[in-house]
Amino acid sequence: MTDQDLVRRLLDIEEIKGLKARYFRTLDQKKWDEFGEVYAAAAVLELPEVEMVVDGRDAIVKMVSEALSGARTVHHGHMPEIELTGPDTARGTWAMFDYVEWPSSDSGSRVGLQGYGHYVEEYAREDGRWRIARSRLDRLRVDSLGDLPVAP
Amino acid sequence: MTDQDLVRRLLDIEEIKGLKARYFRTLDQKKWDEFGEVYAAAAVLELPEVEMVVDGRDAIVKMVSEALSGARTVHHGHMPEIELTGPDTARGTWAMFDYVEWPSSDSGSRVGLQGYGHYVEEYAREDGRWRIARSRLDRLRVDSLGDLPVAP
Amino acid sequence: MTDQDLVRRLLDIEEIKGLKARYFRTLDQKKWDEFGEVYAAAAVLELPEVEMVVDGRDAIVKMVSEALSGARTVHHGHMPEIELTGPDTARGTWAMFDYVEWPSSDSGSRVGLQGYGHYVEEYAREDGRWRIARSRLDRLRVDSLGDLPVAP
Repeated sequence: MTDQDLVRRLLDIEEIKGLKARYFRTLDQKKWDEFGEVYAAAAVLELPEVEMVVDGRDAIVKMVSEALSGARTVHHGHMPEIELTGPDTARGTWAMFDYVEWPSSDSGSRVGLQGYGHYVEEYAREDGRWRIARSRLDRLRVDSLGDLPVAP
Repeated sequence: MTDQDLVRRLLDIEEIKGLKARYFRTLDQKKWDEFGEVYAAAAVLELPEVEMVVDGRDAIVKMVSEALSGARTVHHGHMPEIELTGPDTARGTWAMFDYVEWPSSDSGSRVGLQGYGHYVEEYAREDGRWRIARSRLDRLRVDSLGDLPVAP
Repeated sequence: MTDQDLVRRLLDIEEIKGLKARYFRTLDQKKWDEFGEVYAAAAVLELPEVEMVVDGRDAIVKMVSEALSGARTVHHGHMPEIELTGPDTARGTWAMFDYVEWPSSDSGSRVGLQGYGHYVEEYAREDGRWRIARSRLDRLRVDSLGDLPVAP
């Protein structure tokens, strides 16, 4: 590769990191319009732990925003491994942590989870910007908040 | 932009990431002299959750070092979004986690917190190095350690 | 430095970040062959908290894989500070979190830990790839799972 190619490659990797950062931030801030922008139009989301596959940006935004309605959420990403597979395609993995809490049940016990896993993803440049084309969340473990004490 | 410009831009982003890494590390290691070096002389720190604004590097170091005196702390940053706004200015956001514990109270209950949020920041190159010019911490949630069991 | 040198430097930093990402991922996925590949043949691992020093890639893989046998683990890295010290050598620090749980004891109490600290490391390019040449884990704190409630 020429130096110019290497610079473009580094810029693409940096942009994909920024893309995934927007995914996490807009998810926790519930900025659903911006959240939708991180996905390619035909994006696919796979959640093997709940045997769910969601097809298309609009369906993904609808499912995620409804599932987290009323919840306080924290999602963190870590340690990307990103590989460019073509001029406008890439794949990557990220370690992740999420902390999701819905309003307490009548019994006062906490409802939610703290989870850990890896995103395994594909990216595509579409309309001039990198977007998530395919995302699968493989879990390492999920702890139920119902087994933890009630927070203030 | 020329390739040379792009390379400078990537280097600046990398240096700002290293700057924020030094912020987190020196904070948890309580290396207050090095901690002060991450700030511009006229830096402003905003903590909306406690309605506090601190003006200037020296005041920030004094406030933070006194607030964390005697505490064991862990601070982690995640998922930066960094935008260069000029040759010597930039802005950025970071997801964050902190775990702060002060010595236990007489009753034996834990005193401290585990918190989550976003830093919203501005950076400036001053005396040849990138520094934090403005930092605001927006919280997603804070859990009190008093509601968690005592650790060893 | 020429621009070409700067580009090489940025690529080396990116590769070292990818190296450490592979360390964390293969550790939690228990892919021990791939895990071994992240180390230089003569790598040294220092664990001051347990007064342990392990010499050489093979001994490191043996020790780590045996220590974590049967355990569910999560390891996250954060906020690298990486410095190239020569064309084929570098050093770096990373903040870290780990969550390790072995099968419960007969009494039903949880066995494991949630820990926090910093890796202080040296890297070397060996056989054309960056590898961990020396790694020391300095702890900020370790919480025993025995003091936390049983998870499902």
